[in-house]
Amino acid sequence: MMSLKEQLDKIMCPKSIAVVGASNKEHTIGSDIMKRLQEYKFTGKIYPINPKGGEIQGLKAYTSVLEVEDSIDLALIVVNSKFVLSTIDQCNEKGIKGLCIITAGFKETGKEGVELEKQLVEKINEYGMRCVGPNCLGVVNTNPEIRMDGCFAESLPERGHIGFVSQSGALGGGILNILKDLNLGFAQFISIGNQADINAETALEYWENDDDVDQMLLYMESIQNPANFRKLASRISKKKPILALKAGRSAAGASAASSHTGSLAGADKAANALLQQSGVIREYSLKNLFATAKVFKTCPIPKGNRVAIITNSGGPGIMATDAVCEYGLQMAKISDETKETLRSFLPAAASVKNPIDMIASAPIEHYKQTLKTVIADENVDMIITIYLPFLGLKDIDVAQALMEIKAEYPEKPVIGVFMTKSEFFSKLSDMDVNMPFFMYAEEAAEGLMRLDQQRQWIERPEGKIPCYDVDRKKAESIMYNALKEDRAQLTTRESIDVLEAYGIRVCKSGFATNEEEVASLGNSIGYPVVMKMTSKTTSHKTDVGGVRVNIQSEEQLRAEYRDLLSKLEEKGLLDGLEGVIIQEMVKGNREMVCGIATDPQYGPMMMFGLGGVFIEVMKDVTFRIAPLTDMDAKDMIKSVKAYKLLEGARGTKPAQMEQIEETLLRLSQLVSDYKFIDELDINPLLISEKTGEGIAVDGRIKVRMEEAKEALGLTCCACGSCN
Amino acid sequence: MMSLKEQLDKIMCPKSIAVVGASNKEHTIGSDIMKRLQEYKFTGKIYPINPKGGEIQGLKAYTSVLEVEDSIDLALIVVNSKFVLSTIDQCNEKGIKGLCIITAGFKETGKEGVELEKQLVEKINEYGMRCVGPNCLGVVNTNPEIRMDGCFAESLPERGHIGFVSQSGALGGGILNILKDLNLGFAQFISIGNQADINAETALEYWENDDDVDQMLLYMESIQNPANFRKLASRISKKKPILALKAGRSAAGASAASSHTGSLAGADKAANALLQQSGVIREYSLKNLFATAKVFKTCPIPKGNRVAIITNSGGPGIMATDAVCEYGLQMAKISDETKETLRSFLPAAASVKNPIDMIASAPIEHYKQTLKTVIADENVDMIITIYLPFLGLKDIDVAQALMEIKAEYPEKPVIGVFMTKSEFFSKLSDMDVNMPFFMYAEEAAEGLMRLDQQRQWIERPEGKIPCYDVDRKKAESIMYNALKEDRAQLTTRESIDVLEAYGIRVCKSGFATNEEEVASLGNSIGYPVVMKMTSKTTSHKTDVGGVRVNIQSEEQLRAEYRDLLSKLEEKGLLDGLEGVIIQEMVKGNREMVCGIATDPQYGPMMMFGLGGVFIEVMKDVTFRIAPLTDMDAKDMIKSVKAYKLLEGARGTKPAQMEQIEETLLRLSQLVSDYKFIDELDINPLLISEKTGEGIAVDGRIKVRMEEAKEALGLTCCACGSCN
Repeated sequence: MMSLKEQLDKIMCPKSIAVVGASNKEHTIGSDIMKRLQEYKFTGKIYPINPKGGEIQGLKAYTSVLEVEDSIDLALIVVNSKFVLSTIDQCNEKGIKGLCIITAGFKETGKEGVELEKQLVEKINEYGMRCVGPNCLGVVNTNPEIRMDGCFAESLPERGHIGFVSQSGALGGGILNILKDLNLGFAQFISIGNQADINAETALEYWENDDDVDQMLLYMESIQNPANFRKLASRISKKKPILALKAGRSAAGASAASSHTGSLAGADKAANALLQQSGVIREYSLKNLFATAKVFKTCPIPKGNRVAIITNSGGPGIMATDAVCEYGLQMAKISDETKETLRSFLPAAASVKNPIDMIASAPIEHYKQTLKTVIADENVDMIITIYLPFLGLKDIDVAQALMEIKAEYPEKPVIGVFMTKSEFFSKLSDMDVNMPFFMYAEEAAEGLMRLDQQRQWIERPEGKIPCYDVDRKKAESIMYNALKEDRAQLTTRESIDVLEAYGIRVCKSGFATNEEEVASLGNSIGYPVVMKMTSKTTSHKTDVGGVRVNIQSEEQLRAEYRDLLSKLEEKGLLDGLEGVIIQEMVKGNREMVCGIATDPQYGPMMMFGLGGVFIEVMKDVTFRIAPLTDMDAKDMIKSVKAYKLLEGARGTKPAQMEQIEETLLRLSQLVSDYKFIDELDINPLLISEKTGEGIAVDGRIKVRMEEAKEALGLTCCACGSCN
Repeated sequence: MMSLKEQLDKIMCPKSIAVVGASNKEHTIGSDIMKRLQEYKFTGKIYPINPKGGEIQGLKAYTSVLEVEDSIDLALIVVNSKFVLSTIDQCNEKGIKGLCIITAGFKETGKEGVELEKQLVEKINEYGMRCVGPNCLGVVNTNPEIRMDGCFAESLPERGHIGFVSQSGALGGGILNILKDLNLGFAQFISIGNQADINAETALEYWENDDDVDQMLLYMESIQNPANFRKLASRISKKKPILALKAGRSAAGASAASSHTGSLAGADKAANALLQQSGVIREYSLKNLFATAKVFKTCPIPKGNRVAIITNSGGPGIMATDAVCEYGLQMAKISDETKETLRSFLPAAASVKNPIDMIASAPIEHYKQTLKTVIADENVDMIITIYLPFLGLKDIDVAQALMEIKAEYPEKPVIGVFMTKSEFFSKLSDMDVNMPFFMYAEEAAEGLMRLDQQRQWIERPEGKIPCYDVDRKKAESIMYNALKEDRAQLTTRESIDVLEAYGIRVCKSGFATNEEEVASLGNSIGYPVVMKMTSKTTSHKTDVGGVRVNIQSEEQLRAEYRDLLSKLEEKGLLDGLEGVIIQEMVKGNREMVCGIATDPQYGPMMMFGLGGVFIEVMKDVTFRIAPLTDMDAKDMIKSVKAYKLLEGARGTKPAQMEQIEETLLRLSQLVSDYKFIDELDINPLLISEKTGEGIAVDGRIKVRMEEAKEALGLTCCACGSCN
């Protein structure tokens, strides 16, 4: 077996390429691809393949790959889709292991295309090949030893160190044009198209240890294998920044995405959780994607989030300060020593507090000395330097002076904000810069925020998925019994019992079916208690008066029980009654909620946040894909606004954060163990005013019947009656 | 008296300018300003003034304005600050009514500067002059009949129809450079500097009926006279868009702003409320400010918010859809007729649903036909047309084709998203375009959102500040009595009584001082009731057990009262007790809050939102400057997330929105009538589950003692004892 590197090298670093479908006909892909490979001076051999033979773009053409005598690493396929399968057969016969199928007409076109693509995948797997596409723009490698432009974008590629994966071919082409303008070059580009074989994950893994690739950019409309993406990306993002633009966020956008690529765009909440847990920096527009890439291109990862601003004009200094604060960064406290040094050469009207305003008269020498002084300050982690044009000072000279100083301090990020003519930026794009320059302060602040985000991710301890000792047997037998009765929805008692079997702190309770049992339970739990009916026929208990709270004594408890029975009898609901749950009454006014939502593509997704009537209105909830690591659980709790309530706002008792974390982790273990659980809510998870514990006061579990029956061995054959 | 127009015309449309402090010395303002006026070909006369006389920049120099024989409209003053006052005297002697003082060294420099500026203002007022500055960059008018560049920015101004006011001189200069690059010209520019006389409001009013100005852009760090700004801007913004960048949002930014401009930057919440109530479009970065200006430059105000997207590539279509939805716009439903027409010429693989994907092969003809078809669809209010470069299609040709069609449909906004090389945009900037073009879809969607915001503002009925018939006498006598006892903080009873005097629905209640009164009150209000102590010494009643709820009978009421007395006695707090309030117990679990916060600069600011323990955590509150119009009150209620709760989420009774509106309006009237009210809270304003009314269950009012005493006639002399 070849390693992934060996396999992908055949495609991305080939020594020889066969262009199957090469052509002399102008404005065809078969002709353009040939021209591109030659124009960009591919360092290996090119074999045009065309059934007519002859000469194509000045090279001898072969009627089939089989006719070529030398070995071929990569077949770039542009023939009509109906010839693709037979071409693959020939490639196999020739011993070709790398394919890039540009040809469209597969699963993106409907039923027949889906079938054709299925056959294509089978062939590739059978032959042990790797394949980019189909329905893609091609592949590019700008490494001087390779120089492969196997792609039909408008521009020739710009050399650099970005690894770029695009799910949209056309967009990929558009981006290549823009990148060139932005002076953002890339090392490799893979247009993954329909992702029949190679997808974003494959590319990430391939680039993980490739020194030519410093950062990875992804344009995605769907994530094929979320679990694998998470595994790889969370590892690789600790070494190199991964930036992603995931389109199809809105319902309308997702529906457009699905019609367009033939792959279902997962719910955006799930995608967001996944990217977050994977340490991927998510951008929401191409503009921001490129701006961030530009920052990572030259900036080191800072040691902290304290920003100093140096300016020659007050207004932009204020705007930069606003932006720094709004992006959650700190304004650095300039040390007294630094201030003193600054005062020694800046004019009296200058301000040596952060933002440091050198005032409009600042000559280049002040820019140099100020930057040099501030960058050496230990209280400063990152710097924004602002320039506004004043008479007698040239933007490009100031930029060069800043870059000179910056070169002496490679460990601290410095970003230039030059509010000057666009000519300045054109000039820069022909230069070798060691720091990024933007027109506006907000862009600089956003860039620093991204650097800091990456720092936090790198510093974040590697999360662990704990495995608690739980009573699986009990949990399974409860679910088994419900399934035997063909109930997908567990009763409250069953739900709570399953949670308890997984070690989740539920409120003390017991089940009773007659008045004497009720009274004895109440006495053993201790008052006040709550009484809740459980019924196989009535799931909304409160609507029928089935919940009685704050019962203070045995006497009251007996009276409430008798009253419940008579009310149910009146309504004709007595038959469904199983009994009542007597629960300790947990006091507290902080109602949290946790549970899962199941996304068809991403699997179970954990939810945590503020419960009660506010769930839908405030939407103060957060999501993570299960299974959770301990770090994920910590993040979840901290990321809701209601965290302040948990901390103990207004003199309430602080919640036991670790116990709540553990609740989430145990829940995660539960839904990972039983993937057939479709819905699960703990609502409320009440924070006890007495102990600060999160206590599951009510629970609701629903399974997917068929899946659950199969998993728990309830369907041994297809007859449906044996168990 | 001259009208404002006549006064400002002296400065902005002068026939003659004296440059006081003109110079031949290179790189001085006195030399640069002279050069600029001449280079830009000022259509009037220029008189350089310099004590040395002679010739300056080729013109005869005068030793003083008095030496000039002709009349002078505007004196551009650049002399040292110590000569400014005497210069003003001379200007007055000469009969000059317009000043633009570029000179710095006034209130921005500290105590002495503040004094100097005070004298300057006195002189201007005495002489009946109007003045721009001091400490500013100057003034510009690009009208061909004027051609005045009285400003020392790096670039010559670009002709256009923006009126631009900048509080930061340097920034103003920077912006002029950028505007030119963006092909955004302006009609007039005023660098207001320290705003000793002329400020943003003056400019808005001056431009209100000036046909040369189509839209107004403001860069502000503070708003000098919020009430006047609101009055003018809310009127003018209905005629022409007003876009503002208000810097100093963050606490750090505001502190930088105040050190820099010498004017206190108001709290950002107040500024935000003010801009919102004034119909001003607030932008948060220069980049967005200019992008929006570019959109308003060529786009009409749409009829609605339904957007159609036309694209030749799927990915960007999805991104545009995401952005359209995220900016709160609607994706238009393309009519069946339109779809049919589109299908008649687009290839089978194209999608005629919105986003309309013409696919990569789309020739110019398809762009034209598709735009023409879609723009005529009555379901479509605005259009984004996306172009990605494909072989054989030139960006500029596509743009021209689109503009041709657009010219036939002037009433619908169309924005082009051209993901192409920056050369395209440079080319455009030399052309006369009739629609905006951006590189990215998000920019286009944001632009459309701004157009729609302006549409909504224009369509919003003119708000009215109602004047309710209230019992001022009662309110005043309550406050008077508290003040007589030197209490700035009113008791609960007093607070509630003041609210009731202003017709606010408070819960039924009465005051009792002994058990018999308590019992009789309870019986007349009807059970259940709440009992609350009122005390002059204890303001946090709940902490001492002074609030008893859900009292069901006379018997229980008597018992609770006796219990309260004994508890207070134990704690030694019985002496402060005034009595108890017996209140109807309003049932409902929707706790809102309303009240005021007083901003030192903006005055009383109304607050409304979700109350209870969630105020600080959720911060689901909104602010508006008092007095409120009926429209403001409506907006407030709708703009909090908890509005959904009020609408009746989860089967609760819908709240009486109009009654809550009226509560806010009456409260606004109260705090407008008595400006000395410093704090006022109704918390909770409970929504009755029975009637849906908002009922003030608890209230708290605090006044500013000295101000209040004066206003209510409690201090007739300085002795402090007579009243």
